Amino acid sequence: MSKEFDPPYLRATFSLFLAQSHVMHVQGLSCFACGKRYAFGTLLNLCECGKPLRVDIDLASIAIRPSDLKGRRKDLWRYREVLPLPANHEPMSLGEGGTPLLETNRLAASLGLTNGSLFVKDEAVNPTGSFKARGMAMAVPMAKLFGATKLAVPSAGNAGGAMAAYAARYGLEAHVFMPKDVPAANRLECEMAGAHITLVDGLINDCAKIIADRKDAEGWFELSTLKEPYRIEGKKTMGYEIAEQFDWNLPDVILYPTGGGTGLIGMWKAFDEMEQVGWIGSKRPRMVSVQAEGCNLIPKAIQAGKRDAGMVENASTVASGLRVPKAIGDFIMFDLIQLSHGTALAISDKELMQGAYELSELTGISAAPEGGACLAALKELQRDRWIQATDKIVIFNTGTGLKYAEAFKSYPRN
Amino acid sequence: MSKEFDPPYLRATFSLFLAQSHVMHVQGLSCFACGKRYAFGTLLNLCECGKPLRVDIDLASIAIRPSDLKGRRKDLWRYREVLPLPANHEPMSLGEGGTPLLETNRLAASLGLTNGSLFVKDEAVNPTGSFKARGMAMAVPMAKLFGATKLAVPSAGNAGGAMAAYAARYGLEAHVFMPKDVPAANRLECEMAGAHITLVDGLINDCAKIIADRKDAEGWFELSTLKEPYRIEGKKTMGYEIAEQFDWNLPDVILYPTGGGTGLIGMWKAFDEMEQVGWIGSKRPRMVSVQAEGCNLIPKAIQAGKRDAGMVENASTVASGLRVPKAIGDFIMFDLIQLSHGTALAISDKELMQGAYELSELTGISAAPEGGACLAALKELQRDRWIQATDKIVIFNTGTGLKYAEAFKSYPRN
Repeated sequence: MSKEFDPPYLRATFSLFLAQSHVMHVQGLSCFACGKRYAFGTLLNLCECGKPLRVDIDLASIAIRPSDLKGRRKDLWRYREVLPLPANHEPMSLGEGGTPLLETNRLAASLGLTNGSLFVKDEAVNPTGSFKARGMAMAVPMAKLFGATKLAVPSAGNAGGAMAAYAARYGLEAHVFMPKDVPAANRLECEMAGAHITLVDGLINDCAKIIADRKDAEGWFELSTLKEPYRIEGKKTMGYEIAEQFDWNLPDVILYPTGGGTGLIGMWKAFDEMEQVGWIGSKRPRMVSVQAEGCNLIPKAIQAGKRDAGMVENASTVASGLRVPKAIGDFIMFDLIQLSHGTALAISDKELMQGAYELSELTGISAAPEGGACLAALKELQRDRWIQATDKIVIFNTGTGLKYAEAFKSYPRN
Repeated sequence: MSKEFDPPYLRATFSLFLAQSHVMHVQGLSCFACGKRYAFGTLLNLCECGKPLRVDIDLASIAIRPSDLKGRRKDLWRYREVLPLPANHEPMSLGEGGTPLLETNRLAASLGLTNGSLFVKDEAVNPTGSFKARGMAMAVPMAKLFGATKLAVPSAGNAGGAMAAYAARYGLEAHVFMPKDVPAANRLECEMAGAHITLVDGLINDCAKIIADRKDAEGWFELSTLKEPYRIEGKKTMGYEIAEQFDWNLPDVILYPTGGGTGLIGMWKAFDEMEQVGWIGSKRPRMVSVQAEGCNLIPKAIQAGKRDAGMVENASTVASGLRVPKAIGDFIMFDLIQLSHGTALAISDKELMQGAYELSELTGISAAPEGGACLAALKELQRDRWIQATDKIVIFNTGTGLKYAEAFKSYPRN
């Protein structure tokens, strides 16, 4: 344990948690940007430098092997040793994670790909119908453990519903701030779970500003994307699952619809962790960030070679989960995409909606517009010969299409 | 094998399937009412007598024990030996089944129940967001195996979307007939999957009549509830899962929202099968059929002591899945409710919708109105002291509340 990790003023709190927990695999936290270290055991948002914090798992202490996972619970808590919730705190799971990696015989054939080369990771079958359940299933109990009683989150759509559900499950107060034109289904799920909802005349970053201004006075703990460290820990389980589902051989390409980027960053972290504990080798998939033309933050940054992606003015797309005009983790995404020899591309609303219809019709899944964007991106990368017929490919369907009634109404099938 | 089971005119077909399959655990089919037997190997709807057919599993040939299930796939195909799809036919799963049995600490406390006494079987996290995926995941490949290319189904809501999804997955043509005031989400999921949709000025039984009239001319195979034998086989996996999730000790009470009743009948069949193979004992849960006041078919029949429940005129309820005015399996439900020392009760729309809000707010699940009906029924049975504090209770949430935007709009939270 390094010195920086153990500042005297935090030692008492941390020791308390060490004593409480049967097994403690969290070494501490460190800043993704400046590396400054923080002790585990208190509510934390960003680093003093304003950048996101990473949870550092004590991988040397992880004694389990892949074969030990056999027969474990099927939700994301099967990877318990690498998750930050102390072992003596029982998660109140809603069944998050453990989503299927689906074969796509008909779709693969329509794209000229062979059977067994194209898979959909279907996150629609999570609680609250989206991948956001993973992050909130981790961040909410961690916040509760460290003393939070009121949670606040800005949301482009699905994160709000997920936060509301886990807040309800753990008995915490939930405050959700969403753009006023968010899909009705996202409002409904927050209402059902008893959250306090504020509709904002603006985008997710405007929602975040309101929370930042009010949180101290209101006593809210903020769960914004990458502004607290544990949503990444929930999302990283997508990486563990893909590795396990492919028998610990990662695929060649992952296409991922990117809003704030927690999933991309989380999966990349998972790959590193798994390599360090010897579960996988050094091979990495080429990571493809898929965004919408009206909010093309990461593709523009990759093209310009800039780690600071800035902000998209007047961001607009029917794929509400992609309507994230500024990403505090832009530099992390930039780095991992480069390291992986990946790329980023932007899809028009028309193409991504047709992609969603096609994905549903040829696989039977309920495709979100964001999933449709990945299919459209795959086609473009095939045309450019960036993806080859020999590649093993995963596209993410991040949520159920049922939440996007307005989008499907605006864009009927061609 | 009885003589009736092996009529010469079907022998060739059946032998073909015996030859194709590595393991064949289906003995044949028999009528739930008259007992007449049918060979396995062709498309079948009802018995000649007009009643539903049951799939008879050759339980004596099942050599696996519960411990053999450890480490198997998590979807409903983990019970492969007791399912009718021949072993050499790989199912094209969407991840159906394997749903969580959720603890309900906050809800249990609010009802004066102890921790660990009340569970929700949350079917919302199935593909297409409802328990209907289980039945269609079985019936569609069975229909395809036996030669069907065009499928038709009448649906009060969720069954249509599930059928459309699995038809898309297996590459079959889907025709869905729904009441014109079916929830918009149910229409949307059929559209996304590329199904042919007909909206009918009437209820599910009127939809069924249209299919009956047209199916021969159109070449449709009909997948109506209990009018083909394999949806029960998919639904029975709910019974297997509950047994396994409770470590092979069934709970004391199961509250189940009942439309056509495939789930009740399927679970009861599963209990019998499991007892015969020695996985569970003779104890059965008291089975409670929960319906809506505006469509109280089964409660009325139980009260009157009549196996023939007849039909509800002008059936009406906001819980669209319960709007089933006539049930061809009424006598089977009557018998199993009596055998189990169960009961049936009808809940008002207002109460069931408040139940859905309460279920969501106190557990974090996305409750359908039908799930809310079960919570309201539980409260009523507690008041009547029919349910005791010592009982272990399961209530079913059969689908995601997100599909019921209209219902929640009509009934705001109290």
